[in-house]
Amino acid sequence: MDTAVFPDQAEYTFELVGVFTFALSGAMVAVRRDFDIVGIVVLAGLTALGGGVIRDVLIGATPPYVFSHVDLLVVPLVASFVVVFAHPLIEQRGQAILWFDAAGLAVFTINGTLIAEAAELDVLPAALLGIVTGVGGGLLRDVVAREVPLLVRKDSEIYAIPAAAGAVVVAVLAAEDRYEPWMGIGAVVLVFAIRIAALTFGWNAPGAFRRRPARST
Amino acid sequence: MDTAVFPDQAEYTFELVGVFTFALSGAMVAVRRDFDIVGIVVLAGLTALGGGVIRDVLIGATPPYVFSHVDLLVVPLVASFVVVFAHPLIEQRGQAILWFDAAGLAVFTINGTLIAEAAELDVLPAALLGIVTGVGGGLLRDVVAREVPLLVRKDSEIYAIPAAAGAVVVAVLAAEDRYEPWMGIGAVVLVFAIRIAALTFGWNAPGAFRRRPARST
Amino acid sequence: MDTAVFPDQAEYTFELVGVFTFALSGAMVAVRRDFDIVGIVVLAGLTALGGGVIRDVLIGATPPYVFSHVDLLVVPLVASFVVVFAHPLIEQRGQAILWFDAAGLAVFTINGTLIAEAAELDVLPAALLGIVTGVGGGLLRDVVAREVPLLVRKDSEIYAIPAAAGAVVVAVLAAEDRYEPWMGIGAVVLVFAIRIAALTFGWNAPGAFRRRPARST
Repeated sequence: MDTAVFPDQAEYTFELVGVFTFALSGAMVAVRRDFDIVGIVVLAGLTALGGGVIRDVLIGATPPYVFSHVDLLVVPLVASFVVVFAHPLIEQRGQAILWFDAAGLAVFTINGTLIAEAAELDVLPAALLGIVTGVGGGLLRDVVAREVPLLVRKDSEIYAIPAAAGAVVVAVLAAEDRYEPWMGIGAVVLVFAIRIAALTFGWNAPGAFRRRPARST
Repeated sequence: MDTAVFPDQAEYTFELVGVFTFALSGAMVAVRRDFDIVGIVVLAGLTALGGGVIRDVLIGATPPYVFSHVDLLVVPLVASFVVVFAHPLIEQRGQAILWFDAAGLAVFTINGTLIAEAAELDVLPAALLGIVTGVGGGLLRDVVAREVPLLVRKDSEIYAIPAAAGAVVVAVLAAEDRYEPWMGIGAVVLVFAIRIAALTFGWNAPGAFRRRPARST
Repeated sequence: MDTAVFPDQAEYTFELVGVFTFALSGAMVAVRRDFDIVGIVVLAGLTALGGGVIRDVLIGATPPYVFSHVDLLVVPLVASFVVVFAHPLIEQRGQAILWFDAAGLAVFTINGTLIAEAAELDVLPAALLGIVTGVGGGLLRDVVAREVPLLVRKDSEIYAIPAAAGAVVVAVLAAEDRYEPWMGIGAVVLVFAIRIAALTFGWNAPGAFRRRPARST
């Protein structure tokens, strides 16, 4: 996440918020599944940092960015500590967490796309890696927690689709050398807005087309 | 998959067929599990491209081959689109899909082995990476779909074993500098033939040895 | 695992023991889940070699160490062969296996930490990669076998915590240039001793704090 979507200070703040809320969501899943403290930290870390680590491994930027940014590496530990004691409170504030998570999704996806572009990838692979940065951590969380991944469920409001919209816009702009920082901010707002609208109005993605649902299932 | 098992044009055709049928198999699992459209695309992509991506990451060939071949990256999207509308038809033609899948397994495994050999790996690691190329995508598909991996099930006809047979033959020949393209074709046919025979005659691999099954289980 | 915790010959012996016992544990899980021979080999290999491979991929040391050490690559095959025939005997000697596994955990973790230090990583990332080396294979085993990972379960004696203790000690010492081989041996003994104590006295890690367990769960 070394490209600048936002001015440096704002960028860093957003990164911290994204990592923290993703870590909260991982830790909360661990609490609901009654995992021990190690499980809480593992899920917090995987959720918060997994997407970016996968992206960095795929573009060959090893060791991954987060390994040289100890401050980001500490955030999941802090989030785990908070969740261990405050999980009933966070459970009540579930809606607020979803808004922060949407912010994390938006910043991670656009940042990831720009990093992939900077690594000389084509439009489609760059957008793909942006999406992976945004949704990869949550997928790892669900696989380790043995839940049907939210990413693929019909009853979960759309998540990867707003990410894909923003990632494609930014990847195309960057490939045509028209990208400017304010567009990144616009794309972040776009992803965030679609995700929040999906949560507000209950937008789910459809599954396969079935002529007569009752019979063909 | 930049080494030549077949003449260039044939090679490319086989790659497309392999990626497409693997993507179909992933998308069909998603439909059966009633995932949404995102889940269909995710499983199609993981199944079709996962094995090759793991291989490339392990040999340090990043970004992976497929990231610079947008045509291959688009294939899982096309397969997903087909499955969304034509899944009842594909379900009926299950046997045909298994034959195409066997072709994909054969080409991916032998190609993967040759790529690993070209990366200066020893016989056993090269064969291992060939097998990973062939079976890795299916393993990721089953893990994300939360199914017992076909790869490890007693009631699934042998899959990794024909791949291993072909991979070892090619890895040994290549290590002894005796490899020629027609041998690659032969190995692909070998893997394909064993797999088809397994499907036809119901060959399953045994599990652990149990003296008195009824008691020791 | 190319740094020297122990004199070369002892180091190599420990590595073999660690790989072998980790492979046994993977193969035994496969037998209990009634997987076929491919499943036994896959779980043996993932458990024994997965942690080190993930570490090497993360620090960019590709192809991973084990791919150029065919002797280590063969060990899971040998362990699988042993388990196929001797699994009832191993089941009876479960306690002994846990002790060997604790030795593997200790050696892998400390070795992994030193390798990460040698790759110029900071204290916390180096300790993290040491822990990943020690526990990563078991996590992969449980994900593929579709079991709730031992790593995160409340009823499993602490496993990652002794690893973390040893990894942090070694990472701090190495970062301050005070590391000497006997300290590595000490750290291995420390990890091993805590793990064995946990097994002996039934030390489990707690989960999230719950004021009134009966109501808040």
